[in-house]
Amino acid sequence: MIAHSFRGRVFGPAQRLHGATYVVDLELRRPQLDADGLVVDIGMAGTALGDVLGELNYRNLDDEEGFESKNTTTEFLARVVFDRISQRIAAGELGETAREITSLRVTLHESHVAWGSYEGALPTSAMP
Amino acid sequence: MIAHSFRGRVFGPAQRLHGATYVVDLELRRPQLDADGLVVDIGMAGTALGDVLGELNYRNLDDEEGFESKNTTTEFLARVVFDRISQRIAAGELGETAREITSLRVTLHESHVAWGSYEGALPTSAMP
Amino acid sequence: MIAHSFRGRVFGPAQRLHGATYVVDLELRRPQLDADGLVVDIGMAGTALGDVLGELNYRNLDDEEGFESKNTTTEFLARVVFDRISQRIAAGELGETAREITSLRVTLHESHVAWGSYEGALPTSAMP
Amino acid sequence: MIAHSFRGRVFGPAQRLHGATYVVDLELRRPQLDADGLVVDIGMAGTALGDVLGELNYRNLDDEEGFESKNTTTEFLARVVFDRISQRIAAGELGETAREITSLRVTLHESHVAWGSYEGALPTSAMP
Amino acid sequence: MIAHSFRGRVFGPAQRLHGATYVVDLELRRPQLDADGLVVDIGMAGTALGDVLGELNYRNLDDEEGFESKNTTTEFLARVVFDRISQRIAAGELGETAREITSLRVTLHESHVAWGSYEGALPTSAMP
Amino acid sequence: MIAHSFRGRVFGPAQRLHGATYVVDLELRRPQLDADGLVVDIGMAGTALGDVLGELNYRNLDDEEGFESKNTTTEFLARVVFDRISQRIAAGELGETAREITSLRVTLHESHVAWGSYEGALPTSAMP
Repeated sequence: MIAHSFRGRVFGPAQRLHGATYVVDLELRRPQLDADGLVVDIGMAGTALGDVLGELNYRNLDDEEGFESKNTTTEFLARVVFDRISQRIAAGELGETAREITSLRVTLHESHVAWGSYEGALPTSAMP
Repeated sequence: MIAHSFRGRVFGPAQRLHGATYVVDLELRRPQLDADGLVVDIGMAGTALGDVLGELNYRNLDDEEGFESKNTTTEFLARVVFDRISQRIAAGELGETAREITSLRVTLHESHVAWGSYEGALPTSAMP
Repeated sequence: MIAHSFRGRVFGPAQRLHGATYVVDLELRRPQLDADGLVVDIGMAGTALGDVLGELNYRNLDDEEGFESKNTTTEFLARVVFDRISQRIAAGELGETAREITSLRVTLHESHVAWGSYEGALPTSAMP
Repeated sequence: MIAHSFRGRVFGPAQRLHGATYVVDLELRRPQLDADGLVVDIGMAGTALGDVLGELNYRNLDDEEGFESKNTTTEFLARVVFDRISQRIAAGELGETAREITSLRVTLHESHVAWGSYEGALPTSAMP
Repeated sequence: MIAHSFRGRVFGPAQRLHGATYVVDLELRRPQLDADGLVVDIGMAGTALGDVLGELNYRNLDDEEGFESKNTTTEFLARVVFDRISQRIAAGELGETAREITSLRVTLHESHVAWGSYEGALPTSAMP
Repeated sequence: MIAHSFRGRVFGPAQRLHGATYVVDLELRRPQLDADGLVVDIGMAGTALGDVLGELNYRNLDDEEGFESKNTTTEFLARVVFDRISQRIAAGELGETAREITSLRVTLHESHVAWGSYEGALPTSAMP
């Protein structure tokens, strides 16, 4: 549940400060299940997603560091969530076996008719 | 899609300016259908509901006249929409036969898990 | 999945022959559960509802006996289904204990945004 | 997510031990909002509902005390949840103002097509 | 909301004139967002989709030019909508930056359980 | 509607015997429609899916042959359904033209917030 405003005539009345509730889905994919028969520990995944969303929830995004010159559209925010979840996977926060995850899709539902997604392969792990 | 803030410790982080998207359902009830076999002309009802929501959409409700000392909760807003639709029915904006409508239910869905409604009988028509 | 046309200027382009898919919900209510802990045998209820809908499915309602001078609107059809299910309950087709059902609600969903219902108490059983 | 079995020929293959996932909705009603503009503190209500469901979740209901001679049907369980939430409201666990709630509806969704509810007025508070 | 009939024994009772309501989803994809942070101007996309559907809505498809020898199945119609939206994108009707869209998916929901999609890359623009 | 238990500390209370209801979606894909304008005869596909699910429904999966040493997680079961449907397609049970289907996706919805899928190309037909 965030507040924000947009810049650009294409946004019409949404140039005013207004708000949005997003329902967020996270889809995690891997070719083989882990030894427990799981794609991921859904508890750890839920906690990580909750933490990422908690960094944005109940805020005015116009005031958030890093978003100053951005339109925080649904599709932009889907990418933000994708990047932050990817970092947590790489850091092992979704469990060791979650490093076998090869791609993600993050979807933000604005309403029952409008949504935006970002989908991509996980970045190759940085090597020392 | 509105922005607002709440007053009261019970609201926790929602005391900050934040936003919400509401998906709004309107249920109109009458004992007998009209001569066309309808409860209401769904086009006229949709226009009236759209107009009522348009008065609130893309706004910061903290700045709206009449809401100054109010917490514009989901349940509060459901009553606002109920009252405004009732007035439009009484004024004939949903068509002459819509005056046969005896009760309404207005539901604001905040997300796929949370919603608030206001439900009631229509006020008896003022008599000359 | 029916075809039909409407009479009356209020219907605009729906005066042409067109079609609709209805998803139908049946809500059955009683004050006390039966000896098995059930409102109704859901298998029998599903069969009865399927039979009632089967009488209407894949038809042009403009040609159906009994509907000749009617606009077969969503709300009109909800009443038709209500009446036919009520008769089957009275006839014992939903099981003996289903006679304890005191009210019904039939809802026809036209789309994910539009629906119509008919709700009412069951008629008192005819007495000899 | 519970396991259970049913007794009675009407249940067919469901007489075997099997399981069910219920998605549970709680609807709380009152004539007037509280001083904060709320029906209930949704956080407290969510906690109470979570606690009531936690008493049943991941269990074999055939082995639960109090259910020994019962068919733990969806409609039976809706009543169980209704009674337990009512007690928590009476005990003040949903907040002091939640005592103004006059009726509840508890719905257990078995699947996207089948559900059961229990709906009723809250018991009048016991008087000394 | 269309009427139609099918040819072929596989269709059983759907060989009779009947109807369907389709709820239509349009998914537009591109590798990079435009300068406003958007995949597409949702207003222009909604208008284009509405226009394409308006060419089919409230009609008997058996009588529509171009469909004479076709079974207008859900999957066939998904392709029709895909092709017509693709042409509008190529013609610039969804805005200049919408030409960066690289693939589409069109889904027609027949009911809450049945749907058909057509998905594909956009045709390479014709060159002079 | 199945019962099962899991082995492994990651499962917490789900190590106890409990149950689940899955709502199952089957997505069938092919590059070209058949001569009737169809991806598949939806009646045959529904029957095949019903038969595959019937082999699992109302059972305690801990006792099922072939699952003895397995955690029958949602994602594991999605693969089971995928494999069994693939075999039926190869055997011609979804009709001759269904052999043109090139990929499947099977999704098991555990609740309105959690689901698991298996998606893949159909195995190349064995040659004599």
